[in-house]
Amino acid sequence: MMKTGSVIFVGAGPGDPKLLTVKGREAIEQADVVVYDRLVNPLLLAHARVDARLIYAGKAAARHSLSQAEINRLLVREARQGNLVVRLKGGDPSIFGRVGEEAEACRKEGIPFKIVPGITSGVAAPLYAGIPLTHREYNSAVAFLTGHLCDQNAGKELDWSALAAVETLVIYMGVKNLPYIRERLLSHGMAADTPVALVRWGTLGEQQTLVGELATIDRQAA
Amino acid sequence: MMKTGSVIFVGAGPGDPKLLTVKGREAIEQADVVVYDRLVNPLLLAHARVDARLIYAGKAAARHSLSQAEINRLLVREARQGNLVVRLKGGDPSIFGRVGEEAEACRKEGIPFKIVPGITSGVAAPLYAGIPLTHREYNSAVAFLTGHLCDQNAGKELDWSALAAVETLVIYMGVKNLPYIRERLLSHGMAADTPVALVRWGTLGEQQTLVGELATIDRQAA
Repeated sequence: MMKTGSVIFVGAGPGDPKLLTVKGREAIEQADVVVYDRLVNPLLLAHARVDARLIYAGKAAARHSLSQAEINRLLVREARQGNLVVRLKGGDPSIFGRVGEEAEACRKEGIPFKIVPGITSGVAAPLYAGIPLTHREYNSAVAFLTGHLCDQNAGKELDWSALAAVETLVIYMGVKNLPYIRERLLSHGMAADTPVALVRWGTLGEQQTLVGELATIDRQAA
Repeated sequence: MMKTGSVIFVGAGPGDPKLLTVKGREAIEQADVVVYDRLVNPLLLAHARVDARLIYAGKAAARHSLSQAEINRLLVREARQGNLVVRLKGGDPSIFGRVGEEAEACRKEGIPFKIVPGITSGVAAPLYAGIPLTHREYNSAVAFLTGHLCDQNAGKELDWSALAAVETLVIYMGVKNLPYIRERLLSHGMAADTPVALVRWGTLGEQQTLVGELATIDRQAA
């Protein structure tokens, strides 16, 4: 009987290909199969063996090339065939990366897995814009939330009064829902002149950063 | 006149030396001078050139080997002498890493600098314990705060009612102040049976994880 393979979930980092960890690179170099997301920098695939199979799993905001259930089944099937499968996810797998669901599928099917953390865009993109998330003189707390409110946790309202009171907020994928997020934060007591930065293409050569205030910032101005 | 050097602030990651980024490793390999903290894994210093100078800056919780002002002056002085200085900090430089203060000192003195993010222990240590920080079915927000309440922001009280309402909290250096943090969270409405994990030596071979509930978890039981 063929020996069962395994799955390594690897955080690909936020975009700049040199923000991959040494551990993540070694995993890609050893993989028989690499299953990668839309937000993964394709340059990272160059670390794979020439005979490795590269499988695009998609996950654009609006539609998935493979459904989550299909991705789960793919990982299990490939590992069962004895392969070392690297599941390459943008940023960090555990920060809005849905690694929990995929790891659970492996656990249920008895597939051994490991998780290699990655640099999350919520930390790196502000840094590349010159904005450290904490500063001893200004804040002792920072919160991360997802702006994909419609897709994720549908029907479950965030505790906006709590979030509006945290000193610094980082909102992933927030631009599409900017008007809604702005209204929620303002109506729960966040000051209208709270400084805001909108970042896109974080940590890539094309990174764009727009700075303004909560009440008036507008991505159209970018 | 000698050409001014520069400073690269590098996040060393949480402990596992393979969680350094490729970019961070290249910076260490090129450095003339490496200034490193107590929480940096000493194995990373092996990436430095044999003729690089390695300077320990300390920063134990209770006392600093060099004061923050001394570190600032050291970075500026070494860069002025034409050196490429790598300032190696545990975890990520911008998550309770005080990079803001050191970068400000460089800016004031006209020293060019860059910042390379690192894997923060607040993401990696839970992952190594099998606890992803977000899960689509359970939470849409996670907050990071420092448990060094006495040392940092002395006199400034955190907004505990806000923090107690965020779905998932990660508290850095929180064990010393566990009784105080527990009391604050319970008295601001966090449920007594909220699951809690205490982690030490995160991502290292010796990582220890103790799981319990907010009202009763006790590090003495570890």
